[in-house]
Formats: sequence, C-alpha cells, structure tokens
Amino acid sequence: MIVHNVVILGASGYTGAELVRLISTHPSLRIHALSGERKAGMAYGDVFPHLRHLSLPVLQKIEEINFAGVDLVFCALPHATSQAVIAALPTGLRVVDLSADFRLRDLAAYEKWYGQPHAAPQLQAEAVYGLTEFYRDQIRSARLVAGTGCNAATGQYALCPLIADGVIDLDEIVIDLKAGVSGAGRALKENLLHAELSEGTHSYSAGGKHRHLGEFDQEFSALAGRRVQVQFTPHLLPMNRGILATVYVRGTPEDIHASLARRYGSEPFLKVLPFGGLPSTRDVRGSNYVHIGVVGDRIAGRAVVVAVLDNLTKGSSGQALQNANLMLGLEETTGLLMAPVFP
Amino acid sequence: MIVHNVVILGASGYTGAELVRLISTHPSLRIHALSGERKAGMAYGDVFPHLRHLSLPVLQKIEEINFAGVDLVFCALPHATSQAVIAALPTGLRVVDLSADFRLRDLAAYEKWYGQPHAAPQLQAEAVYGLTEFYRDQIRSARLVAGTGCNAATGQYALCPLIADGVIDLDEIVIDLKAGVSGAGRALKENLLHAELSEGTHSYSAGGKHRHLGEFDQEFSALAGRRVQVQFTPHLLPMNRGILATVYVRGTPEDIHASLARRYGSEPFLKVLPFGGLPSTRDVRGSNYVHIGVVGDRIAGRAVVVAVLDNLTKGSSGQALQNANLMLGLEETTGLLMAPVFP
Amino acid sequence: MIVHNVVILGASGYTGAELVRLISTHPSLRIHALSGERKAGMAYGDVFPHLRHLSLPVLQKIEEINFAGVDLVFCALPHATSQAVIAALPTGLRVVDLSADFRLRDLAAYEKWYGQPHAAPQLQAEAVYGLTEFYRDQIRSARLVAGTGCNAATGQYALCPLIADGVIDLDEIVIDLKAGVSGAGRALKENLLHAELSEGTHSYSAGGKHRHLGEFDQEFSALAGRRVQVQFTPHLLPMNRGILATVYVRGTPEDIHASLARRYGSEPFLKVLPFGGLPSTRDVRGSNYVHIGVVGDRIAGRAVVVAVLDNLTKGSSGQALQNANLMLGLEETTGLLMAPVFP
Amino acid sequence: MIVHNVVILGASGYTGAELVRLISTHPSLRIHALSGERKAGMAYGDVFPHLRHLSLPVLQKIEEINFAGVDLVFCALPHATSQAVIAALPTGLRVVDLSADFRLRDLAAYEKWYGQPHAAPQLQAEAVYGLTEFYRDQIRSARLVAGTGCNAATGQYALCPLIADGVIDLDEIVIDLKAGVSGAGRALKENLLHAELSEGTHSYSAGGKHRHLGEFDQEFSALAGRRVQVQFTPHLLPMNRGILATVYVRGTPEDIHASLARRYGSEPFLKVLPFGGLPSTRDVRGSNYVHIGVVGDRIAGRAVVVAVLDNLTKGSSGQALQNANLMLGLEETTGLLMAPVFP
Repeated sequence: MIVHNVVILGASGYTGAELVRLISTHPSLRIHALSGERKAGMAYGDVFPHLRHLSLPVLQKIEEINFAGVDLVFCALPHATSQAVIAALPTGLRVVDLSADFRLRDLAAYEKWYGQPHAAPQLQAEAVYGLTEFYRDQIRSARLVAGTGCNAATGQYALCPLIADGVIDLDEIVIDLKAGVSGAGRALKENLLHAELSEGTHSYSAGGKHRHLGEFDQEFSALAGRRVQVQFTPHLLPMNRGILATVYVRGTPEDIHASLARRYGSEPFLKVLPFGGLPSTRDVRGSNYVHIGVVGDRIAGRAVVVAVLDNLTKGSSGQALQNANLMLGLEETTGLLMAPVFP
Repeated sequence: MIVHNVVILGASGYTGAELVRLISTHPSLRIHALSGERKAGMAYGDVFPHLRHLSLPVLQKIEEINFAGVDLVFCALPHATSQAVIAALPTGLRVVDLSADFRLRDLAAYEKWYGQPHAAPQLQAEAVYGLTEFYRDQIRSARLVAGTGCNAATGQYALCPLIADGVIDLDEIVIDLKAGVSGAGRALKENLLHAELSEGTHSYSAGGKHRHLGEFDQEFSALAGRRVQVQFTPHLLPMNRGILATVYVRGTPEDIHASLARRYGSEPFLKVLPFGGLPSTRDVRGSNYVHIGVVGDRIAGRAVVVAVLDNLTKGSSGQALQNANLMLGLEETTGLLMAPVFP
Repeated sequence: MIVHNVVILGASGYTGAELVRLISTHPSLRIHALSGERKAGMAYGDVFPHLRHLSLPVLQKIEEINFAGVDLVFCALPHATSQAVIAALPTGLRVVDLSADFRLRDLAAYEKWYGQPHAAPQLQAEAVYGLTEFYRDQIRSARLVAGTGCNAATGQYALCPLIADGVIDLDEIVIDLKAGVSGAGRALKENLLHAELSEGTHSYSAGGKHRHLGEFDQEFSALAGRRVQVQFTPHLLPMNRGILATVYVRGTPEDIHASLARRYGSEPFLKVLPFGGLPSTRDVRGSNYVHIGVVGDRIAGRAVVVAVLDNLTKGSSGQALQNANLMLGLEETTGLLMAPVFP
Repeated sequence: MIVHNVVILGASGYTGAELVRLISTHPSLRIHALSGERKAGMAYGDVFPHLRHLSLPVLQKIEEINFAGVDLVFCALPHATSQAVIAALPTGLRVVDLSADFRLRDLAAYEKWYGQPHAAPQLQAEAVYGLTEFYRDQIRSARLVAGTGCNAATGQYALCPLIADGVIDLDEIVIDLKAGVSGAGRALKENLLHAELSEGTHSYSAGGKHRHLGEFDQEFSALAGRRVQVQFTPHLLPMNRGILATVYVRGTPEDIHASLARRYGSEPFLKVLPFGGLPSTRDVRGSNYVHIGVVGDRIAGRAVVVAVLDNLTKGSSGQALQNANLMLGLEETTGLLMAPVFP
C-alpha cells in the first residue's frame, strides 16, 4: 500500500490531537512532522499523554520542518495565522486548513466577520469549501480545502438539502445550537474552567454575532440563489464533545424528512432517523457520523430538524481527514469508520 | 413569632427534599409530618442523607398523619394521585400542590394533556395558578394553589409581560428550552442514568407534545385575550439543576427589554440584565432568583429573550414556599433570600 | 482473510455494546448473533443508537440462536446466569465469559463471595483466568476464558510484577480505587442516576467487602506462594469510564518502578511512565491501554503505584477481545489499537 | 442587633465569593468593602453574576479602603501576599486569613513548604490555627486566625480525636484524598479546563509533596506529643465542590468510631454516621457540615475512616465565618446552618 506523508501544523490543540488520533490507525497515512510553536521541542506524548503509546515526531517550529516528500499538510492553526503560514508553504502542496481563513469566498465577508482584511486573496480564490457531501468533486481535485466551522457544519447538514429542494420557507429559519466545550479549544479562558462550566449552561454570541453565520449566509444563499439569513443562537453546555442543532423551519414535515432521507440515503456518515426520531450527541461521540431527526410541530406547516455530530471529528478533524482521503485518491471513509464511544 | 405547622406529602422525591431544605431555615414554619408511601417508617435522613443534621419526623403513610393543628399542606405527589389525596384532606386546609393536577382551568385541556378525566373538578374550580408574580393577590386568599410546571414557569417569566404589553407578535414565538435532570425526579429511568446522560444532550417531546404546553396555551391566551400557541422544544442537559429558555420573538428589542425591566423592576426575585446581557443557569443554582436577558437579532424586528431559573427552587419548591408565605400572611420572601451556590 | 463467526450473549448491556463497538472494525470477526432476553426482537440500533450505523442481527433469545458455524461466544451475562448458559452451549465452543462465574478456581471462595454454590464445577476446572499478560499461553489453548473483574484487573496490573519479583512487603498493601459509573452497568439503581452521582463521590463496599477481593486473594497468593490479603476500598466517581487505582506499597520505589518497567517493557498495551509520573483516566478512555506510574513517598521505604485503565475496554470487553484473538490464533492486538478519545 | 462591619480582601476568587454568599444572609455582619486588585472598579455582580441580586460595594484596591469602623477583615489573598497585606493593616483589626501564611507555627516549616522565608514572624507568633472545634477558646480571643487548608481540615477531622485518644497506630496512617476542582481556585490553568478535567481523574503531589502536609505534621505531632508523619495522596475529581478523605488506620474499629462519636457528639457541624456508614460529598455541598464514617477492615486491627466536607464552605469560607462569629462574640453557628444543596 502506498503511504502518504502528512504534516500537522498546530498540533498542540485539540483538533491537532484529534487528527493524530484518527491518523494513528489510518492504513496509508504517515505523520512526517508535527508543529507547535510554543511547545516546540516537546515530545507529543508529554503534550497529549493519551497518545503516549504512539511513535511520533517531536513538536517542531514550522520553519524547522522539511516538506520534501510531504503529500499533504493539515493546518490546525488559528485564523489569520493560517493564511500567512499556508501562503509560505512550498507551492503545490495539498493543504487541508481547519481554520476559518478560507471558508468565506467573499473577501468583504471575511473582513466583516473576522475584523481584518484577508492577506492571501489569491489562495482564497482557489480554496474549496470543505463540507464534503456537498463539495465532493471539487475537493477531489483541490489543492486547498477550507474546513468548515463545526457549528456551521451541523446547521448545514440539517438545512442544505431543504434549501436545495425548496421545501422550506427561506425567511423563517432559526438554528438553536448546543455545543460542548472542546470546540472552544485548549485556550485558558475563565468560562472554560470546569468550575465555571460544569453544572451550567448559557448562550453566547446571540442575536447574529457568531462568526459561523458568515458560512451560513454564504452557503444557504448560494443554494437558494437568493440572500438567506438565518437566526442563530449558540449555547455552551457542560459536556466535552458534541453539537446538537435544533432547527426550526416552515414547510411540510414529511417533505422535509423525505428531502433529507433522499439526499443522505447513500452517504456513509449521515444517518437520517425514521420520521419523529430524535438524535442525541452521545450517540456520535468520537465518531464521524451525523444523526438527523425530523419532527412535525403541532402548528401545521412547521417542523423541527435536529442534527448532531462530534465537533472534533465530523465537525473538524474527521471532516479534514475525509477530505484528505479524497484529495489523495483514497477511499473516502478510510480510517473514519470507528464506532462512537458510548457511554 | 407565630409558628405555622406544615405537612409535606410526597416528601421522598426531589421537590419534597427541596421543600425540607428551604423550610429548615425558615423562621416560622415547622414540619409537622412527612409522607412517603413506599418509604414509610424510614428516617428522613436515611432517604436524603444531606438532611441528616435535621430533627425531622419519620416518613409516614398519609393516612397515619394527624392533620389537627396543621396550617398548610405541601403536596409533592405525582399528578392524578394528587387530586385524589387533596380531595380527601380535611376541609379548609390550605394546600400548595406541586403536581400538574390543578394547573389547567379547562377540564378538557387537562384530559387532553394528561390522558384522563379530572377527578376533582370542584377543587380545580377554586384552585389558583401559582405563578406568584402574576397571581399574587389571588394566592394570598387562596385555599388551594397549583404550582406551575418548572418549564412553564421559565417560559412565562420570559413572555408574560411581553404578551401583556403587546410588544411581540403572538403567532411567532419559539421556546427552545434546556433543562437539568433533577426536573425528571428520582425515578429509575434508563435515560436518567449518569452513564446515559453525562456528556450528552438530546431533545424530547419535540413538536408540541410536552404537557407544559397546556400551561403556556392557557396563560398566554388569557393574557392576550385570544388564542396563542407557541412552539416549544425541551432538551435534557448533563447538569442537575437549572433551566434555560431561549425564546425567539418578533418585536422591537428595546421595547421588549423595557417591558420586562418595567414589569419586574420591583420584584424581589426577578432580575432583568442590562440590554444585551445573557444569563446562565449556574448563576441561580440553589436559589429562588430568575435572571432574564434580551438581545436584538441582526434581522430587524426580531429578538431573543433568555430566562434562567433553578427548576427545584423557583421552578417548584421555592415557588411553593413563596406562595405558602403569602397564604399564611407572612412576608413573601421569608426563607427564600439565600444566594445561589456557585461554583 | 478467514472470518470467524462470533456470538455475543447478553448484548444489551454496556459490555455487550462495547464488544460490538470493538468488533465493528475488527477485520476478521463477524457477529453472527446477539442475545438479549428482555429486549429480544428489538433492532440493536434501537437499544444502542450509537451503533445504528451498523448492520447487525436483531436481538434474540439465547434458545433461538443457531450455533452452527460459530467459532467463539462472548458471554456478557450476569454471574450465576452465565454458568447455567455456558454449561448448556454446544460442547467444544470457545467461550470468553465476562461475568464473575469462572474467575475463582476455589469453589468455596466462589460460594463465599457470590453467596451460592457453583453450579458448573467441571467448567470452572477448565477455565483459564483472563488477565492476558499473565495467562497468555494458557489462554491461547483454552476453551473457556474467565474475564477478570475490571477493578481486579487494575489492581493486578499495578501489583502482580511487584509480588512476583518480591520487591514489596506482602502484608502492607492498600488499594484505594476510583471508578467511573459505567462499571455498574445499565441497571436502574438510584445511586446511578445522574442527579445522584454527578458532582459527588463516595466509597462503597469498604473494609473488605467487595467481591473483586476474591480475585486479588487468589492471584496475589498464587504469585507469592503464600496467603496475601490486601486492603481495598472502591469509590464511585462522577465520570462514565475509567478506573484509577492508587496502590500503597512498601519497598524501594526505584526497584518497584524497575520491576514494572521490566515486566511490561514489551507489552503492547501496558505503558509504564517515567519514575515520578502520574497517570490519568482521561488518557486511556475508549482504549485498551493501561498507564502506570510510580512515586516514592517522603517516608523511606514506601511508594505509591497508580494504574489507570478503561473499565469497559481493557477492564472487560477489550480484554475479552484480546483473549478471543489469542484463542482464535489471531494477532493479539487486532482491532484493539485505536487511540484513546480525549477530550 | 449590633451590626459588625467586615471587609473582604481578595474578593474576586471563589473563597471570596463564598464569603459574600454566606454573609449575605448573616443577620449581623455588613460588608463594608471588597478588594480585588485586577478587577478594581468592577461591580461585584459583574465578577460573580450569581451575586448580582445583592447591593455590594464596588471592588477596590486595598489601599483605597477606609478601615475606620471596620470590625473584622477576611483576607482571601494568595499566600505570601497575605502576610504583607495583613502586616500593613491598621493595628488591632481582627483578621481571619484564608491563606496558608499563618498556618505553620514553625517558621522553618513555612519556608520548607512554601519556598521562601516568612516575612511577618511577629504576626505568625500571635496567629491561632483556625480548626474551630480544636482551637475554639483561643480563636474567641484571637486577633489573627489562620484558616486551615481545605484538605488539611478534612484529614484532621478524621484523625485528630483518634490521635488525641491514642486509639490508632501513629506510624501507619494513609490519607487518600479526593477533591473537587473549586479548591484550585479561579486560576487559568490547563488542567482546570472542563475539557481536561471532566470525565477523568488523576492524583497529584503524590508521595509527600503536597503543602498541606505541613499542617498534618504540625497538628498531629502536637496532639501526639511526638513526631507523626502520614502518607497523603490528593486526587483531582471531575466535580466542583467537595473533599472526601479515605483514611487508613490501625486500631480497633469500634474504638475508633467511639472516639469520633464522643469527640463530636455535641459539635453542631460534625456528624458521625453509625458504625459502618459511609458518607458522600454530595451530602454536604454548599453547607458547613462534615460527615464522618468508620468501617472495620476484614484484616483485624485495621479500619477505614471516611470524612467529607465542602472545600469552599467548611474547608475555607464557612470555617472563616465560624471563626469570625467567635471572634466577634456572636453565636458560632450564625449564618451557617443552611442545609446542603442536593441534587
């Protein structure tokens, strides 16, 4: 079997560690180098002791990495940093970027949501949006794929087929989203402390302030062929992994269910529950699966769509690996079929 | 100080234990008897070891209780049982019922939501709905007060002033509610196990099936003077106490905030945050306080109201005690001003 | 590749589900049948929705299963039931039993710890104790392997090499053990409810009452060639997976570390940390790895050994699969090399 | 009723907030000022939103506080800072210090455990150790009381009577301690993040390195009239409040139980369970109570003592208030009799 060499930049965060976890049992990827600026020189098992059983390269600074022979780079750096680093990589290297830097095709939208002009517009122009099931063919031949936001992926899995099929009212969409804390990363912030978060929940960025709205606007409008704006309220929950999006839509509930079932019927990772079924985040933890349920409301013409996924797997690193498989000509599901871990 | 004798029926559940906790430092209530059918004969501290420091009556069967000299009965029994037990109590006893049995004034609505005809319609006719801040005067002179559902209370605190003031669209209300597990009681159900619930979340009774909708329909329609139906999706979260209701409404956000701030300005337990503020369940845990925030959406004319309370305190037993204080002519806040426990 | 047909009896509990999870990506095992008495007739994905993506047999009653062509049976039934069921299986079938029924070679010890006489002493006589790293050769040729207790495994990994090497005082061993709740299974017990367990911890079966002491007594005494009795206090912690054993021993700390490092140096699943390192349960979650640390105490001649594993994986179902691999002539680590899931 | 003015220095941490919570319903204490260096100028309710219902002074820098008319100062600052700040306070002010600065009477021991010489030895000389039940008389007349470590308090409640009564072997004491995360404070450390701590446990400072050993050594040796050294291993658990100490001792179990029962029989906050009973941290959460259980081991002459308390209440701020009550001539239990919050 041909072995492809990959590099993970920004490997000292949770999405980096999740990539290492997934790749560790992937039959044809080999980790050539791992970067971590502040932790350069450390053994990876000292940064993430759950991976201490693996033989891995020591964390390096990016400039120390020799990219000769490398087939693909995963870039798990913060936005803004990503675009600078990727622009400086050897030309022609395949890149899967997990940051927000290449998600928005409209440079003005990028500047609006991220507060600064885009520094690599030529790269943005060639980037393919990484929602695999909707961009599969472009991803296969892409050089640069922009991983989606984890919240953005969850909402899109619930809504994209419905918008494409024209079965819902485009002006009446509410996404109420509940997310575990690992999506916030390993950053040292007071509200991420166990003592602060455990046994409590709160909403944040309510009222249209969350950056993933940029992705919703872009993708939903493109699918609809007109401007679509949703309401979106994320909530932080006392759990580590998992996103549950409760999506309020207008349309015939059975049509809505049929649209999703039809669209995802042959997708390996998307499972649409029987009509009336309701999914749970605990049923996808640690896996690349998405579960989606549809319920009709007592008010005629309204329905609730609920989608769940694991933010670190299907919401970021699993998606990244799925895209990398496509870019490298591998079977798309390779290394991603592990079952969820429950309880 | 005059001491009032109270009895707690159904004291072996969480709301019963919460009543005991609150009454234990109340200066003028004295627990005369505690009932618990299956645990009759047990010391209360063996059923709830966190209360083992208290000198309390042994659990009894209801028929063993001598109601002579009793001033008020808290009834924390399951619905259906409650109406039978309360109908059999000595005439004239003041009763605060925590079950669903006397919440719905329309007997047909009761039968619809609870699946059986009401067995004590004459008691229902005199029952006062227990949302203290909106029924204070009737509660003061009531003989039977029906405690609200904990979810129903949370949604109403967010919405009642807005409906009364006519500042929101009555046909466009969505209540997305997140609740801790203690609201489900001490019942032995698989989905309440730690291994099932921890690290996961799910919605239930979605699409208009949750019984607390009966209360929303009744109260909102009464306030509006017309039929009001909301969408309501509850979610179970991996935390013990707390409800957070994210309420999507249409109207001018500033007017919505002003309506709430005005209505609750002199209420001892309701705190409206400055415009744009977002509350958290962790900030009310173990207390009788409600925190409410209002945020305007990026889509003009839409707003999000977020209300939090502790389901066992303000959502049930604290509310019950607040009502009992009124019924007994005591200062309404007596025994209820303890601060939340954080972290 | 040759495919081996396996059957899982008692597949509706957590250890059954963990077996299905592990086998789902095992390259040469095929699940032929799943039994679940009370849930017979149900689709497995309805009992464990996290496995709904798999094509699996419907749950059956044991007597409905056709064992023709079956190579190995995993028996995840409760003790006492196990011995009856296994005794009735077709002669010659390989069996990995996860219950306590065949762990104790001394029938009197079985009766003492489990409160009833053993009903299948002839099976007990041929059973091999399933602590893979210490019974590997016997397991390879065994027909019936008795999976260890999850607590018993954790304590033994910390202690067996030390007893075998004679580097600790046999009369001064204390095992203070902390365990997540999934080890208690999916049983409906009050103390396993989220509301009871979350945010709290307690010890149970303290003072020498826990049944896994039967295994400690048997194995440690056999290794030492004399009677060895340890002190053992288990604690239930608010987490789902994981056991951490803090073991207090007397001896030279460096010798203790050297003994463990030497004994486990070539073991694929046992990782001894550098001297002074301390392991965490979060670092083995969902995996078959064991991490062990050794620290010297400020009191000369005393040391603390800390061992962690995932009770559902290495503590039961992962161990069972590891043993099944050996019994079937497969590479021992097949299907078990997945990395832990963190966070 | 006379009202005493108090000041809380270092009010922006968890122990400061816990003091505010407790004092908020204390009938005769009034918070005159709150200090918080980095958050000076902020409203207290913005730092701790769970206390937003209270009318409190804005956070100040210490030098801005006017101490005229102040009766007592609670000092919840970090060690080293505490001694400097307290030394600079107006002479004669009563002080309850919650830091480690005045706990160790031996200046050399302070330097050993805290890594620097003591800067206020004259204050140390007059400080009284704050374990109320054992220093009650000295505390009543003290000017400076040194609050104990929360772990140190838990272990001492289990052991002090046993050492004083001579019923255990002084050379064979092991304290295996499990603690919730709030004891680590609101500091931004990676291992305190929810994603790191939730669903996992680990030991730390094992082998005799934890600073609270300085208190154990001092107090146990003083009681015994000879040098006593215990083994002590703390563990961090995924819960917010609560400490459980499992203490392994040698002696006659019934005598051990009798010693504790006798010593604490008339103590308002210490509850000794019937022989064989085992306490849980969830039963003391948010309260000032300590529960203690004793179990005999199967090995004759050995016993296990288990003690639980809430680290933020009885382990620090509740203890501080109890001591302040004594110093101010108030009833010792004032403001401290609230029941635990469960679930």
